[in-house]
Amino acid sequence: MLAEFDLIQEFFTTAAGEGVALGVGDDATLLTPTAGQQLVVSVDTSVVDVHFPADAPAHAVGHRALAVALSDLAAMGAQSRWCLMALALDQRTWADAVTGRAWMHAYSEGFLALCSRHDTGLVGGDVTAGQLAISVTVMGEVASGQALTRHGARPGDIIAVTGALGGGAGGLALWQQGERDLAHPLIKRYLLPTPRLAAGQALSGVASAALDISDGLLADLGHLRRASGVGAELDADALPLVEGLQDALGQSGARQAALSGGDDYELLVSIPPDHWREACSTLARLGIPLTAIGQCVDTPGVSGVMSECQDGWQHFVGETP
Amino acid sequence: MLAEFDLIQEFFTTAAGEGVALGVGDDATLLTPTAGQQLVVSVDTSVVDVHFPADAPAHAVGHRALAVALSDLAAMGAQSRWCLMALALDQRTWADAVTGRAWMHAYSEGFLALCSRHDTGLVGGDVTAGQLAISVTVMGEVASGQALTRHGARPGDIIAVTGALGGGAGGLALWQQGERDLAHPLIKRYLLPTPRLAAGQALSGVASAALDISDGLLADLGHLRRASGVGAELDADALPLVEGLQDALGQSGARQAALSGGDDYELLVSIPPDHWREACSTLARLGIPLTAIGQCVDTPGVSGVMSECQDGWQHFVGETP
Repeated sequence: MLAEFDLIQEFFTTAAGEGVALGVGDDATLLTPTAGQQLVVSVDTSVVDVHFPADAPAHAVGHRALAVALSDLAAMGAQSRWCLMALALDQRTWADAVTGRAWMHAYSEGFLALCSRHDTGLVGGDVTAGQLAISVTVMGEVASGQALTRHGARPGDIIAVTGALGGGAGGLALWQQGERDLAHPLIKRYLLPTPRLAAGQALSGVASAALDISDGLLADLGHLRRASGVGAELDADALPLVEGLQDALGQSGARQAALSGGDDYELLVSIPPDHWREACSTLARLGIPLTAIGQCVDTPGVSGVMSECQDGWQHFVGETP
Repeated sequence: MLAEFDLIQEFFTTAAGEGVALGVGDDATLLTPTAGQQLVVSVDTSVVDVHFPADAPAHAVGHRALAVALSDLAAMGAQSRWCLMALALDQRTWADAVTGRAWMHAYSEGFLALCSRHDTGLVGGDVTAGQLAISVTVMGEVASGQALTRHGARPGDIIAVTGALGGGAGGLALWQQGERDLAHPLIKRYLLPTPRLAAGQALSGVASAALDISDGLLADLGHLRRASGVGAELDADALPLVEGLQDALGQSGARQAALSGGDDYELLVSIPPDHWREACSTLARLGIPLTAIGQCVDTPGVSGVMSECQDGWQHFVGETP
């Protein structure tokens, strides 16, 4: 039988990072925010069999739970600083100290490696019994007034996405078919997504609006459109697909995954035309693809063009109202 | 079937509070910390059938989930500012829009009423499917260097507790016997605990160490002792018991509940003798009892005196190592 204090001591006591005046081990943690910065906070919960499969490797569970939360900081153009992790562990993991400890070891490795990669201090958390689930609260900082939001897009702005789309849905489909190779491009994007923190920070002051693609491109584009009060013309043929997506899902399935699949954790941004070259060169230096997929327009809603539809669409399937 | 966006819109969109530059509705929330203050952060998870009974009224579930998290800010002497709430809702609640909406309505009332009482803005959260569980991240502020910690107690300091003990264990016992009156003093302390924020702030600069009693008096006293490097002499006869506790559990059961029951969410503090009168008068003005129950000593461990034990104890039953 594992004990909460031992678990935290063994797996989650990391060196107190910058800005941590008092770390894990008291009732709460004391942080010293940077003067002149705004604090950017968000929480994201990952539940077994809802957000990740029960047989996902423990280190991927840890990585993914943090990555999806950090993705929200990326969408704000923030620098990640700290996180808190609330872990509910199922009874079997608690009950068997050997397999439980092995699971915790791998889980914490996945979580803490991503913390380290993004200079994010784990400054608090708890471990309880319950259905396996992780709530991660992330805290970042951004210069006052410089955060990217959803409401700055204007007609004429170019709509673009970082990286490639369809990995979330494509990886899930492959996993359900029995593929277990974490190095497969689709599985990797599904279980080990990369939060686009560097891209978000680079696009602060360049993009007019941004959010991360968690609900699916069309749904998230809907959030951006409504927040900004613009419409969108989308060129579905221009969507950058993850390598191997068409092989896995076929042409139509791949496009559907890219449009509506969700869990891609790429950034969806709007960029004023006179900032476009700067945006491209900035992200090129970071080695992150940026692909124009449409533009903002006055007309509400989303219209689209697809090569196989002569008249284009008035409404994409899968868009939320 | 309920939808996440609708739920958040309907039940959790509150007026943006002070220090909130951008509220719920974007990828993350933007906060403006107060200059010269340290940030105090903590997270606490409440899981059905682990931390609260499945048949607890929804408003009590909401209240309690926030209260236990705020209790950690109280223990630091912090002022509560903001919180984030990650709610996992079981399938039945999602599936039936009528009972689901009624549950959510009562739950959010309990949660938001306590937010309001402590000037705490709900600035983020998510709602997912899963076993009913709530992770609440609380964020408070305290003047730099003024936080109460666990490691300031010195030999000679008076050990004291706010309020009364045994309510957590006593209330649970009564609930299991079928008592459902939320106004019963024990049930009230079990399901509707009061975070001692006012007491914590009043004792900042007065107490030498503090923590909240969540694991049980002896366990939490162990945390304080080890962090401060002191021993403790405890007068078990002096423990302030919640009204009705002896009736419910008998004399021995009541004492055991007060010593080891946990979930009391009172503050356990050490107070230098020359601060004792100030501590008492300050809390008296707030209407919060403060009771001396022992003192810090040089000798490691806990020794105790009880009227029925001529020689006292060398070791209390229930103390964690």
